[in-house]
Amino acid sequence: MHIAVLAGGVGGAKFLAGVKRHLGWDPYGAAPADTDDEIVAIVNTADDIRLHGLQICPDLDSCLYTLSGQADTERGWGRAGETWTASGELAGYGAEAPWFSLGDKDIATHLVRTRMLDAGYPLSSVTAALVARWQPGVTLLPMTDDRVETHVVVADPAATAGDPAPLIALHFQEWWVRHGAGLTPQSISPIGAAESTPAPGVLEAIAAADLILIAPSNPVVSIGTIVAVPGIKQALRSATAPVVAVAPLIGGAPVRGHADVCLAAIGVESTAEAVGRHYGARSDQGLLDGYLIATGETADVPGVRVSAVPLLMSDPDATAAMVQACREVAGV
Amino acid sequence: MHIAVLAGGVGGAKFLAGVKRHLGWDPYGAAPADTDDEIVAIVNTADDIRLHGLQICPDLDSCLYTLSGQADTERGWGRAGETWTASGELAGYGAEAPWFSLGDKDIATHLVRTRMLDAGYPLSSVTAALVARWQPGVTLLPMTDDRVETHVVVADPAATAGDPAPLIALHFQEWWVRHGAGLTPQSISPIGAAESTPAPGVLEAIAAADLILIAPSNPVVSIGTIVAVPGIKQALRSATAPVVAVAPLIGGAPVRGHADVCLAAIGVESTAEAVGRHYGARSDQGLLDGYLIATGETADVPGVRVSAVPLLMSDPDATAAMVQACREVAGV
Repeated sequence: MHIAVLAGGVGGAKFLAGVKRHLGWDPYGAAPADTDDEIVAIVNTADDIRLHGLQICPDLDSCLYTLSGQADTERGWGRAGETWTASGELAGYGAEAPWFSLGDKDIATHLVRTRMLDAGYPLSSVTAALVARWQPGVTLLPMTDDRVETHVVVADPAATAGDPAPLIALHFQEWWVRHGAGLTPQSISPIGAAESTPAPGVLEAIAAADLILIAPSNPVVSIGTIVAVPGIKQALRSATAPVVAVAPLIGGAPVRGHADVCLAAIGVESTAEAVGRHYGARSDQGLLDGYLIATGETADVPGVRVSAVPLLMSDPDATAAMVQACREVAGV
Repeated sequence: MHIAVLAGGVGGAKFLAGVKRHLGWDPYGAAPADTDDEIVAIVNTADDIRLHGLQICPDLDSCLYTLSGQADTERGWGRAGETWTASGELAGYGAEAPWFSLGDKDIATHLVRTRMLDAGYPLSSVTAALVARWQPGVTLLPMTDDRVETHVVVADPAATAGDPAPLIALHFQEWWVRHGAGLTPQSISPIGAAESTPAPGVLEAIAAADLILIAPSNPVVSIGTIVAVPGIKQALRSATAPVVAVAPLIGGAPVRGHADVCLAAIGVESTAEAVGRHYGARSDQGLLDGYLIATGETADVPGVRVSAVPLLMSDPDATAAMVQACREVAGV
């Protein structure tokens, strides 16, 4: 079975571990040598940021580290056994973005990536080179090799109180990490997406898939940016495989992250039903054939088969059961 | 008193700590706020190397870290409390030059430096910015803002035994660190030196000095490259201040490093006398008015006043005594 998965970072990586387990693979290691199955992850790159001259790809790296068993599962992001010496020093120099901690192991990844990018390799080739070391078992594709960056427009928090505050645009990471998503977005835009093209392999993976899954990642800044790359939405709509999404909300709230705040910015209610309707049915200009929501909830999404199952990705077995439910709702 | 010092890395830094102590300053801290004295170090940059996309300036950083009390005095180079996480990871990626260990603290310095260089700032401005944090007490000037790199020509160690081995050129660091200076140099050349110009402040510091000192650094790859920058030798020859060198050899051997091997490559014997004659007298196309050699040795250097004193830089007090001896031999 060929499975294509649209994924963000930490949640996407967890979901992919469950897809691997569903196929009987080690969720945190390489794919079996003799398998005919294949998993291709199409990963959001609009969170990427260049700091200290280093190109940082948080979502790709979360997938890379998690799926190869290198992630710090306790902290929830970054590398196991990480140290933070360089970040402390960079802060000592008063260098940019002290709110963005870079682990020393992580910096090595960014140095290798940046050097290859600066030498002219596209991000997809660089990612393939990193995958060659880590063997995450999954083919990791950036959604695009082009520069796309999510920017968030907010009222300037530094503006004088009382005045109508002027609007400023923040890089997604500044809004998310520095301000903890605490500044109400006026709008959220994946800058550059309209001029981008899918990375090599992305459209092919969607066309060749037997099953297409949309991970329970942020519908706005992860899944939303992937489908904002021209060609990807059309490929999903014309794919022969069914498309099934997993709701990113349980009881109206994200398990992790700030999907609710992002949804509010695009005028979508924080309910599984509203997200399902936002994705829409393939039979009606949308993306989905099937949709998983959490046990005990209901969602009426016209044209989409909805199934309520436990959605907490507490371990790869629990997540594998969600993938099985995706197959069942899709009938494959 | 204004003192200008030509210096390499570790030995140059130790010598500068003694110059500070000679003036009554803290050898490992900032200069006193109320002093009229000044120390300007003109530092070799021909050991500099770009690895992993990072611009690394070993000699400047040795001075920076040592003179601000941040050096690891036990290991003899790099930062105190250093960690090596990123280097281990870079090796895991099979990235270039695994023989060159980069500490995590050190990487932060290189990230800040490289970012500023890539933004268009000359190395002298970048160095001034780093100095602003560390307050080494000494004005640190790179010998040049231009790219100069010492290359060492050796018989290819990978060539088949028995054949006349073809010659290859190695970057100085590869020859020094990777091969431990164990490959006999056919020649040593500071590539780019002929087209370089002194960094801002270098010629001015030499002209304004009351005393000019040549640290007991490597006469070939440290001092030799500094005076290979067009204009610097002439400035030394026309300076109003006396020029005094400290012999880099005790009993015919360097205290640290491989000066003897480098001297052999340029046809100079490994004796204090031969180095003194190599530098030569200002009265005869050379550089020196005075020259310190180690107690118990003799050196006949025509036109140069020679004084034999203890030369081991065991601590800043011992080194300060050497500086006092430099003043005495120079008569200032």
